[in-house]
Amino acid sequence: MKTRAAVAFEAKKPLEIVELDLEGPKEGEVLAEIMATGICHTDAYTLDGFDSEGIFPSVLGHEGAGIVREVGPGVTSVKPGDHVIPLYTPECRKCKSCLSGKTNLCTAIRATQGKGLMPDGTTRFSYKGQPIYHYMGCSTFSNFTVLPDIAVAKIREDAPFQTSCYVGCGVTTGVGAVVNTAKVQVGDKVVVFGLGGIGLNVIQGAKMVGADMIIGVDINPEREEWGRKFGMTHFLNTRGMSRDEIVAKIVEMTDGGADYTFDATGNTEVMRTALEACHRGWGESVIIGVAEAGKEIATRPFQLVTGRVWKGTAFGGAKGRTDVPKIVDWYMNGKIAIDPMITHVLSLEEINKGFDLMHKGESIRSVVVY
Amino acid sequence: MKTRAAVAFEAKKPLEIVELDLEGPKEGEVLAEIMATGICHTDAYTLDGFDSEGIFPSVLGHEGAGIVREVGPGVTSVKPGDHVIPLYTPECRKCKSCLSGKTNLCTAIRATQGKGLMPDGTTRFSYKGQPIYHYMGCSTFSNFTVLPDIAVAKIREDAPFQTSCYVGCGVTTGVGAVVNTAKVQVGDKVVVFGLGGIGLNVIQGAKMVGADMIIGVDINPEREEWGRKFGMTHFLNTRGMSRDEIVAKIVEMTDGGADYTFDATGNTEVMRTALEACHRGWGESVIIGVAEAGKEIATRPFQLVTGRVWKGTAFGGAKGRTDVPKIVDWYMNGKIAIDPMITHVLSLEEINKGFDLMHKGESIRSVVVY
Repeated sequence: MKTRAAVAFEAKKPLEIVELDLEGPKEGEVLAEIMATGICHTDAYTLDGFDSEGIFPSVLGHEGAGIVREVGPGVTSVKPGDHVIPLYTPECRKCKSCLSGKTNLCTAIRATQGKGLMPDGTTRFSYKGQPIYHYMGCSTFSNFTVLPDIAVAKIREDAPFQTSCYVGCGVTTGVGAVVNTAKVQVGDKVVVFGLGGIGLNVIQGAKMVGADMIIGVDINPEREEWGRKFGMTHFLNTRGMSRDEIVAKIVEMTDGGADYTFDATGNTEVMRTALEACHRGWGESVIIGVAEAGKEIATRPFQLVTGRVWKGTAFGGAKGRTDVPKIVDWYMNGKIAIDPMITHVLSLEEINKGFDLMHKGESIRSVVVY
Repeated sequence: MKTRAAVAFEAKKPLEIVELDLEGPKEGEVLAEIMATGICHTDAYTLDGFDSEGIFPSVLGHEGAGIVREVGPGVTSVKPGDHVIPLYTPECRKCKSCLSGKTNLCTAIRATQGKGLMPDGTTRFSYKGQPIYHYMGCSTFSNFTVLPDIAVAKIREDAPFQTSCYVGCGVTTGVGAVVNTAKVQVGDKVVVFGLGGIGLNVIQGAKMVGADMIIGVDINPEREEWGRKFGMTHFLNTRGMSRDEIVAKIVEMTDGGADYTFDATGNTEVMRTALEACHRGWGESVIIGVAEAGKEIATRPFQLVTGRVWKGTAFGGAKGRTDVPKIVDWYMNGKIAIDPMITHVLSLEEINKGFDLMHKGESIRSVVVY
């Protein structure tokens, strides 16, 4: 079949809207019609050439929502007509990681996914006879895409695609970091560094579970209004402040340090500040942001010996098929908000504009609707 | 009263055995006759001048066992005749830290303890009219010492002083890191870096809770025999190996990485190796060793984002008055061993020899018996 797609033919070039050939689903695979897709920083990270393992030509996009149109042999978990969110972190429920009960980092198809291939080692996309690679196992910048069945979460049919697609990455990453990774509890004091889309989702996750104090930290004062919209109780503009000054200020505001801090900046120096702003004895800091290649985090071991814990999260610690439908329910039940975060709705032809808006910091989330 | 003590008059000089004046216990304090005390690396760290906050002249020693001889006004938790272990990490059961239920790092007397003073801001020891400072709130290198009542754990009377004193620091630090901080579970795969006294206690803690695989890592092949004595199942001599080689070897031995790793070396480069040898998705690394002043730990944030957790432990996460008596019980019930670790028994006059043995790596633990 044919599918309209925005193709990344090479790094550092705009996406090109072309018609691709798409092979139907093979065994254990599904064909999904993508109805909407968010544009995420990770797509830009790859497109801009920062990911040394980025593969081209490829169909980027990993934050979508759509409808199953066809299933390959052996697929029983979904059927044509099911509404689904593609999962760049699949959930096979069979591998050592899934069975551990301790992590969402399913390893079933990791090797091929990282190479831009389906599990059988081939691609379903092609252009003029040449293979076009998949991306993060999703490739939602195509109107139709093929996915392994372990990489789709079935969601309720009354959830709008235009907003629920954001659960495919940003919402789950931020809310999940709070709920699954940190396990913030009612009454806790939380600090969020970086009030972009991820940070705002951390804020609303912390609000949902009843945190007493939710301090948002950013160097852009315009983000204060955004933070307060989702439950931030205090704002700290750290422009011009040293690490020691920021830590001292947060220790003062929280009477000893935060119970949980989250880095949603990807800046390794901020990650250190976030750790050191934790309460002695029990404070935990969660790294969400993806750092530049080669950058390292550092601190004195004394920070850990006196009880602080340093951890990270990927896809918010969420098990895709199990937890993503729940998060969509939370959205539909009004426990979390998504609509106000979707600042721009674009057509596929306008997708490069979405990247521009993100680079300029003018969007929280731009969504392409097919 | 008078007490015989080994006094650190200044850094980098041998201790001097002298007779000190000792004031009796004030309100909330107890007078204990120390019957035995271990000589720990932390005492040497201070005596050798590495601790920039070290205070002299002082009575070092923090790993003792003894008998309460007198109590000051208001003391109800212990009475004369009770057998006790002094606690450098007290347990007031009233401060924010104690009440949090999340940490053993009681802050009730932290400020004065760090200055070598009793909670009222004075010292009980003096020599020729000049104050001699307390150390870590214990000062067990004195035959008699005065302690806050929140800083003594009452233990069973049939426990020998000569061995149970080791519970005052080393045993609790190592066993507690496994039981309280990491919470190692039956079937887990554990790696211990550094097979000194702390490392051996980590090993026997891991054995006690039923770990399947206990890998000991050291660059001294003679430590293998010691490790196996306490439950080590595999030995890895890492002399000459790079960090990547060590990590790869441990990943191979454990089929993916360790569930828990422990640094008992104090070397920040080893701490990084220990973290990176953890299993993707859930492995946790616990820093026990005290690093040189100013040294920092570092890693790529990717290590945490992919599910590894970095934490630390002080006094094995043990609440002194609650947990130390339990560990003495475990020893008396044969669940852990101490006797074979006490390699040298000395008189107070021989205490400097104990430091020499430790510096040369010839002892696991030297104990002074009064």
